[in-house]
Amino acid sequence: MYSFRNDYSEGAHPRVLEALTKTNFEQTRGYGLDPRCQKAAELIRTLCAAPGADVHFLVGGTQTNLLVVESMLKPYEAVIAAHTGHVNVHETGAIEGTGHKVVAVPSPDGKLTPAMVESVPELHSDEHQVKPAMVYVSNTTEIGTVYSKAELAALRACCDRHGLLLFLDGARLGSALACGDMSLSDYAALTDVFYIGGTKNGALFGEALVFAKPRPDFRWHMKRRGAMLAKGRLLGVQFQALLEDGAYLEAARRANALALRLREGVAALGYPLPVESPSNQQFPVLPNETISKLQAMGYEFEIDRAVDGGHTCIRLVTSWATPEQAVEDFLRDLASC
Amino acid sequence: MYSFRNDYSEGAHPRVLEALTKTNFEQTRGYGLDPRCQKAAELIRTLCAAPGADVHFLVGGTQTNLLVVESMLKPYEAVIAAHTGHVNVHETGAIEGTGHKVVAVPSPDGKLTPAMVESVPELHSDEHQVKPAMVYVSNTTEIGTVYSKAELAALRACCDRHGLLLFLDGARLGSALACGDMSLSDYAALTDVFYIGGTKNGALFGEALVFAKPRPDFRWHMKRRGAMLAKGRLLGVQFQALLEDGAYLEAARRANALALRLREGVAALGYPLPVESPSNQQFPVLPNETISKLQAMGYEFEIDRAVDGGHTCIRLVTSWATPEQAVEDFLRDLASC
Amino acid sequence: MYSFRNDYSEGAHPRVLEALTKTNFEQTRGYGLDPRCQKAAELIRTLCAAPGADVHFLVGGTQTNLLVVESMLKPYEAVIAAHTGHVNVHETGAIEGTGHKVVAVPSPDGKLTPAMVESVPELHSDEHQVKPAMVYVSNTTEIGTVYSKAELAALRACCDRHGLLLFLDGARLGSALACGDMSLSDYAALTDVFYIGGTKNGALFGEALVFAKPRPDFRWHMKRRGAMLAKGRLLGVQFQALLEDGAYLEAARRANALALRLREGVAALGYPLPVESPSNQQFPVLPNETISKLQAMGYEFEIDRAVDGGHTCIRLVTSWATPEQAVEDFLRDLASC
Amino acid sequence: MYSFRNDYSEGAHPRVLEALTKTNFEQTRGYGLDPRCQKAAELIRTLCAAPGADVHFLVGGTQTNLLVVESMLKPYEAVIAAHTGHVNVHETGAIEGTGHKVVAVPSPDGKLTPAMVESVPELHSDEHQVKPAMVYVSNTTEIGTVYSKAELAALRACCDRHGLLLFLDGARLGSALACGDMSLSDYAALTDVFYIGGTKNGALFGEALVFAKPRPDFRWHMKRRGAMLAKGRLLGVQFQALLEDGAYLEAARRANALALRLREGVAALGYPLPVESPSNQQFPVLPNETISKLQAMGYEFEIDRAVDGGHTCIRLVTSWATPEQAVEDFLRDLASC
Repeated sequence: MYSFRNDYSEGAHPRVLEALTKTNFEQTRGYGLDPRCQKAAELIRTLCAAPGADVHFLVGGTQTNLLVVESMLKPYEAVIAAHTGHVNVHETGAIEGTGHKVVAVPSPDGKLTPAMVESVPELHSDEHQVKPAMVYVSNTTEIGTVYSKAELAALRACCDRHGLLLFLDGARLGSALACGDMSLSDYAALTDVFYIGGTKNGALFGEALVFAKPRPDFRWHMKRRGAMLAKGRLLGVQFQALLEDGAYLEAARRANALALRLREGVAALGYPLPVESPSNQQFPVLPNETISKLQAMGYEFEIDRAVDGGHTCIRLVTSWATPEQAVEDFLRDLASC
Repeated sequence: MYSFRNDYSEGAHPRVLEALTKTNFEQTRGYGLDPRCQKAAELIRTLCAAPGADVHFLVGGTQTNLLVVESMLKPYEAVIAAHTGHVNVHETGAIEGTGHKVVAVPSPDGKLTPAMVESVPELHSDEHQVKPAMVYVSNTTEIGTVYSKAELAALRACCDRHGLLLFLDGARLGSALACGDMSLSDYAALTDVFYIGGTKNGALFGEALVFAKPRPDFRWHMKRRGAMLAKGRLLGVQFQALLEDGAYLEAARRANALALRLREGVAALGYPLPVESPSNQQFPVLPNETISKLQAMGYEFEIDRAVDGGHTCIRLVTSWATPEQAVEDFLRDLASC
Repeated sequence: MYSFRNDYSEGAHPRVLEALTKTNFEQTRGYGLDPRCQKAAELIRTLCAAPGADVHFLVGGTQTNLLVVESMLKPYEAVIAAHTGHVNVHETGAIEGTGHKVVAVPSPDGKLTPAMVESVPELHSDEHQVKPAMVYVSNTTEIGTVYSKAELAALRACCDRHGLLLFLDGARLGSALACGDMSLSDYAALTDVFYIGGTKNGALFGEALVFAKPRPDFRWHMKRRGAMLAKGRLLGVQFQALLEDGAYLEAARRANALALRLREGVAALGYPLPVESPSNQQFPVLPNETISKLQAMGYEFEIDRAVDGGHTCIRLVTSWATPEQAVEDFLRDLASC
Repeated sequence: MYSFRNDYSEGAHPRVLEALTKTNFEQTRGYGLDPRCQKAAELIRTLCAAPGADVHFLVGGTQTNLLVVESMLKPYEAVIAAHTGHVNVHETGAIEGTGHKVVAVPSPDGKLTPAMVESVPELHSDEHQVKPAMVYVSNTTEIGTVYSKAELAALRACCDRHGLLLFLDGARLGSALACGDMSLSDYAALTDVFYIGGTKNGALFGEALVFAKPRPDFRWHMKRRGAMLAKGRLLGVQFQALLEDGAYLEAARRANALALRLREGVAALGYPLPVESPSNQQFPVLPNETISKLQAMGYEFEIDRAVDGGHTCIRLVTSWATPEQAVEDFLRDLASC
């Protein structure tokens, strides 16, 4: 039986493993100052059409988020996020741990709009309140929705009007690239900083952080928070493997296609999927006894929330590693419940 | 030409790579809650003869150091370290970044003694000074020296007298185990917390942290600092591969033996090695022109410090991956300088 | 013309000034270790019927709030507050500045209820979310409402059920004591920590913090945040002057009475006061042109918020120092607008 | 019997108390935005011959020190201080509490020299070490010595060469002004930021912080650390009283004169005073039994350190409030020991 719990249940995409094996005995300098990281960074700058971008490789998402905020904001400055934003609810207060407030705005679909940003009362405030200085968005969002280019451009314009930085968490950027209307160059053009998530799309681990402008002291921030990997070249090797021949996008397309097959199959069985997700996370609402039966069969997935006394919303996640058969089996077994 | 720059220039020990490849498509829960990590933790408790020990896996040393300090001390409490201690000089203020002072004590050989600890004036102080609460030592030390069991036991007794915690940084514990008079069970018995360094002895990355007593909230601390690896099982897989058949100790013995061959060879050529190091870091003092010649040949190593106008102390580091031939070549080329 | 901007527009209550003058040339130890502070703390313990309480004197409210949170919570623990709570909106992220998240709960009247506390999803969560550990309430609240004894007792029971600390911000405790159904001993019995606000009720500055149980290391926390006043006895002298003959309660009664006279007079003129405040802050809604006229006459007050295109809610605050005539003048002038 | 324990044993200089009393019923805005603070700031700019200086008023020294560091440095930047510096040893890790390392340099007389600053190895380092960004000095120093103008100018030049900020802690600036060769305008010209200590020279409390250049966001930093006094005008009133007619300098001269009378008298009795202090702190070395006798008579002073088995260095501090007779009595009683 299969686990649809998340998109990091397995190890690495075969290309990644192959590249790690192949380069294993090369000797390189540590801490990301090696030719592999340089090559991967160059590749990313090219794909982003951003020759002046500053690229850094980090191990994980929470680490990346806290470093971006800490390195770009002054101590009294705050981040605006949707109430569902990862930095608001799923990082054990990592942002606050660096001294910064997250100002959470209710959002029905996990996305921020300019109107929501402008509803933050501190935007034009005095020294008795925090000073919002950055807007944080995720793409895909934590609930699987996706920003269009027009939506992100509108946020960019809003940020420009109010002197705010725009930071895009790309832990699931692969899935967004595979189903949205933006390419890497759009992300680079519209944000001040974003990242290309490796962990959830084929790497053993790793996030490639892209600053629009040079941040010459970012490595000091990294080291201070224990975020500089000794064998840094592992990150370069992995991103090179994923990005140089399109494996990254292909893996995400595969994950999305399987998720849509799940969506379609679940809907055909008459179960609602209230979140309009085109990406690799799907949120069906099932009767509680159906959920128990699926679990008894050995299926694994996360419980999102109770909908009413008899129904619960669950989360199904697919990845590059999900076998087609697992999806078909699940739908067949769901039909039998 | 070979790089003796450090013990993390290559990838992983073949056993580690093999284990990662073999387990690549297993599906497991994330964040270290998987059977591989449980197995590795159990193995470590057995090797430590510490059935009640609490084991956590982390990616790197600075991350581990800052989390140990932050999770065990109150905000106003401080760490005592040798002035050469990694937490004092080589972590970009990571400890201070968590709000804690490092009280540095001069040490001629990189080791702390009870007398040095007791020289800290704040030990019996009032609320106008920080309150030292932890002694930090490294084994092997940052300059390659090694604590004997008697020395560590004396520090333990000193800590007990003064109500101090004893924390041992084992980034190079493999090398210490391979040349010292202590086994893992001694470390577990004599410290409140220590770690078994993977990064510098065969893992792609990873440090296995061993608390003498349960720390049920340590995972909250980890997550808050971005130190919880999504595919946490990678750490369990690696430590299992290194520890279950003795590969860890064997790799370290090999590194030490090559380092001693370097030491012997360098000394035979008449160059001084002022630090009495039995471990995988050696610190010869060479004429500056000799160093330039070695560099011109393509050898890489770190410059430790200028000794006088004409001489410089360099650092040579060996590892599980160092070929014997590289050592012999180096000695031959040094002789020719 | 008078300023109703706040309750700290003037200097000190005459008794306070007199006491400071009288004791000016006494020599005492610094930092609150003097007989004056000991006497004031003893007086507070007696008034609180809490012989085991631990009393500390601090200069201001934000300082006190951040120290209570920092000294009582672990780094990953969070505070639950009403969205209007001072720690959430009016301290420039001081709580986050100590590394802790404030989990804000919407509240219609500035007060928290057990149901609101229990609505916080993190209450029973895992290591990916902060761990709420403290409930923060203010009495009187930031919008002038007041907790009854039954309400505070219900929160206490809720906190006990969930293992939460209860912290009551008493910046305006005088006003709450003067109009509510609780005495100091009720506050001491029902909370883990609360404070008796001096700044807003007659002191030059100062908050007397009362912990239900000894906090032997609180002075270390104070010093570390620069919150230990060198001439600490100034705080003891002031609280003794305010508390020993009932001046504190009398001053607050006077402020409340004048505020209710304002409320009554404003309501009689037909203006709504939507917040049911029995305390020294009143929030009338006035036409914008009326506000402009009052300002043109020289009256000062804070703008709370725009109600609609033509009306604005303002805040009027009275204090021990407000002359009766100022209130009558204001009402007369408002009637003439 | 008199206490020579410190220069903040009494209340306020009579002029200060008089000014506080006289202005007590004025209504002003809070938080330092009042005419009294504006007036005092203007006066300080004039005395400093620094029309562009940015002046802020704070309650105490540790608070001021931590705010200066936190507001001027990036997280990974460090402060260089003499090992005797207040920020290094007497603030319970307040600087580290804001995330910054204090790099302590041994100093025989409590003063830093350019050579000492340049001995800090991190000065030209990489991202694995903190980046020193500020030099911290105190005048008078913690052991009573005083910088000359030439010495401070040399440090200024050193800071300019290395891109370091120069911060001067003036908790005892009065005493330095009264015995050194610098006026306020010299301090303003030679430092990036310094402060005029009120607490130790006649104020109830208060430090006037002078930035050479505008720091428009400093008030956000202040509020976030709980350092903004609600009745901020108290600080303006006090500094105006002390500075406008020379009372500040006169008070310090008096304190210094009494200290030198103590020095002279103690030396005449044959006791050594190894620290060459021209200021209001004197450090005689006395036999232990003599110290016990003085204490038995009721004299109070701080113990600095044990010199040998039979002798101890004590600290005697004078202030604006010390009666001449107390000094003469002490010398007479010392002679009788």
